Amino acid sequence: MRMYDIIKKKRDGRFLTEEEIRFVVDGFTRGEIPDYQMSAWLMCVFYQGMTKEETTALTLAMADSGEKLDLSAIEGVKVDKHSTGGVGDKTTFIVAPILAVLGIPIAKMSGRGLGHTGGTVDKLMSIPGFSVEVPKEQFIRQVNELKLSLVAQTGELAPADKKIYALRDVTTTVDSLPLIASSIMSKKIAAGADAIVLDVKCGSGAFMKSYENAVELGRTMTEIGVLAGRRTCAVITDMNEPLGHMVGNSLELYEALKVLSLKDVEAACAKDRGLKRLVDVSLTLAAYMLAVGEEPNAAPSADTLDACRKRAVRVIESGEALDRFADFVKAQGGDPSVIYDPEKLPVAKDKIPVYPSKDGYLAYCSAEEVGMASLMLGGGRATKESTIDVTVGLELLYTLGEEVKKDEPFAYIYASENSDAEGAKARLIRAYDISETPTKVGTVILGSIV
Amino acid sequence: MRMYDIIKKKRDGRFLTEEEIRFVVDGFTRGEIPDYQMSAWLMCVFYQGMTKEETTALTLAMADSGEKLDLSAIEGVKVDKHSTGGVGDKTTFIVAPILAVLGIPIAKMSGRGLGHTGGTVDKLMSIPGFSVEVPKEQFIRQVNELKLSLVAQTGELAPADKKIYALRDVTTTVDSLPLIASSIMSKKIAAGADAIVLDVKCGSGAFMKSYENAVELGRTMTEIGVLAGRRTCAVITDMNEPLGHMVGNSLELYEALKVLSLKDVEAACAKDRGLKRLVDVSLTLAAYMLAVGEEPNAAPSADTLDACRKRAVRVIESGEALDRFADFVKAQGGDPSVIYDPEKLPVAKDKIPVYPSKDGYLAYCSAEEVGMASLMLGGGRATKESTIDVTVGLELLYTLGEEVKKDEPFAYIYASENSDAEGAKARLIRAYDISETPTKVGTVILGSIV
Repeated sequence: MRMYDIIKKKRDGRFLTEEEIRFVVDGFTRGEIPDYQMSAWLMCVFYQGMTKEETTALTLAMADSGEKLDLSAIEGVKVDKHSTGGVGDKTTFIVAPILAVLGIPIAKMSGRGLGHTGGTVDKLMSIPGFSVEVPKEQFIRQVNELKLSLVAQTGELAPADKKIYALRDVTTTVDSLPLIASSIMSKKIAAGADAIVLDVKCGSGAFMKSYENAVELGRTMTEIGVLAGRRTCAVITDMNEPLGHMVGNSLELYEALKVLSLKDVEAACAKDRGLKRLVDVSLTLAAYMLAVGEEPNAAPSADTLDACRKRAVRVIESGEALDRFADFVKAQGGDPSVIYDPEKLPVAKDKIPVYPSKDGYLAYCSAEEVGMASLMLGGGRATKESTIDVTVGLELLYTLGEEVKKDEPFAYIYASENSDAEGAKARLIRAYDISETPTKVGTVILGSIV
Repeated sequence: MRMYDIIKKKRDGRFLTEEEIRFVVDGFTRGEIPDYQMSAWLMCVFYQGMTKEETTALTLAMADSGEKLDLSAIEGVKVDKHSTGGVGDKTTFIVAPILAVLGIPIAKMSGRGLGHTGGTVDKLMSIPGFSVEVPKEQFIRQVNELKLSLVAQTGELAPADKKIYALRDVTTTVDSLPLIASSIMSKKIAAGADAIVLDVKCGSGAFMKSYENAVELGRTMTEIGVLAGRRTCAVITDMNEPLGHMVGNSLELYEALKVLSLKDVEAACAKDRGLKRLVDVSLTLAAYMLAVGEEPNAAPSADTLDACRKRAVRVIESGEALDRFADFVKAQGGDPSVIYDPEKLPVAKDKIPVYPSKDGYLAYCSAEEVGMASLMLGGGRATKESTIDVTVGLELLYTLGEEVKKDEPFAYIYASENSDAEGAKARLIRAYDISETPTKVGTVILGSIV
């Protein structure tokens, strides 16, 4: 087998065999296939696409390129959730304890994210004493006992993906559906879950700007998951503005704990559109995860999903989900009192009001620009070497469609001495378009693929 | 300017500016743009193509990347000829002395070819005493006196093309019209001629297998030449079988000298189809070169071309072309008596008859396979380091459409002790399909672009 022939075959739009794709991935990972041939091949994939069988073969070859987590010592159907990335997404902290209470084991290993805020692991680090470095045995034991552990990834999952991604990043081949889908799914499959629920974000703050592209990505990933023997489904959710009010690390955890403290979910959502968006996405994901966790071999019906969602609401309102979060924090060395009193979470001292550019209705938000404002405050990582300030961030008081007045704050910035507060403020203001007349606002759940 | 943005622009089908293309070529030649970005860009060009303005910019950037010959000290309009490569092409030896007699200066520097036989320079080296290493001053003086000098290329013309070609060769991006056209034209333009006549070969022994592709290549190269300020035209010629009877180095020179010795060109061609094909291509090219050399600012009319062709025939039949060849050989240190007595040229001693596989009519020839047979005898270079045996080669007794009998030789192999004569023989036999019924044969001149 020669790389030259494989490039040519894909170049001419022919399908590659599993063997050929494995030859490419293994050869490139081992350094036997040079960068220049790999980038030519990636560009051919960009133009010619891949069948679902090819994309699955690529995914599995990348998943097999490094360590694979063995979660077989954990009882039950392990369900993982993956978001394609947005701004203000703190659903993991809401969904995970709910599912744990309902008996679905959540055993999640996360990497340190590059982005506007830190990843799940960084956000948890804002809890005093909390440790994300947990030995494998303790991780397994804890999931069997509490049904919940969130830890930092050890070893390297899917190193082939990492090496290929680095090349895609400099050769304009990031933006290819089969390459995006296989990159995500390779890591999910290496992470060992039995079932996967995908949250495919769509809109100004997401990688996929259009609904059609988001659906196609969701469908492609779902097909890969199924062909790889994992029960997989996808929910398409709106990311035309951040999810919820808070963007940051401790701030996002704070907001999630507030949701888990609600005594009447529906009533609270009726009064607060930002909260409602966050709750809707969280409960929808929880319902799908619960449904596939309990019935991994059937596509969930609308009735099943509705029932699952109600059970999720119940474990919030009963306080069980919050209690489970506290137990989980305690098990990993953190101070559980913070969970019941989130005001204790570390927050940057400077709370600076931000005023909109004029009176009117919030008509458009570049969620990505809001994220960039958070990055300017120090809340995220621009490179792997950056350190994160977990205390900084943004609080958005209004959602799209709501009325703002130019002499009343529409947001707050939480800044530390290292923040570029002025820059972040200007960026945040520019992120919004304000119209004189009210604008129509859509729902947050846009569709699903089961 | 960033390579990333230029790749993306071409990836998305947008047009690149001259500045951007120069940035790519210069950056890559200097080693500032890495291979993997260049190969991604080349693949985008493969898929998206280039406008004639882009292709011209690429050509000129490559032409400017190294030494450029200055032929301004030579009087008159310098006309160069270029063939896109075929098997048995010895037209240069016929065309060059004809034009020299008719007053068109031929100042040609050639590289050592990679291929089934050697290049022009290798073939000339079969003349005892002949030197292709001529100082620049003597080269210029000789062209001004005799209107003819053929020497080995010194320095490196268009090194960018060489570096880019090496990358294309391993990334399946050779087969791209703008890349092929700019590669050829960059070297032609660096070689300093005022006018260029292209012989675009088409068929089983050519890079372009179909007439449509050959026309498109001819048109693209012609456009580049014109935009680069060079009078350029192209002739499309058939390469579905070797040109003439001889394939080799001294053997091809021998055949060319036989043509230059003809006393009645038309009568000789009437009796010999292989000879007629060679003469037709040679005279057509000579006519175009003469026409553009004498009238560089006008597209030649059919009448002009016809008159030019007749003048070319006349200088063959008068013996002037052969005399000029002898003068040229003498000027470069060779033995001019060989020109009048080509039997003196060195030819391998083993002349082995080759019999066809069955009785019938020659219906198809893979000219490329015939070339490979010559390579197996030692007549060509597989790599830059290979040495050539100028004495070996093939003599094809029949052309397509002619009848052969399995107990009569249809070809001879001229082999030396280092030749793989048995392999070459088998390959030569396999190169032909023989049919029981006569087949139609087309003409050798297929079209032209002026």
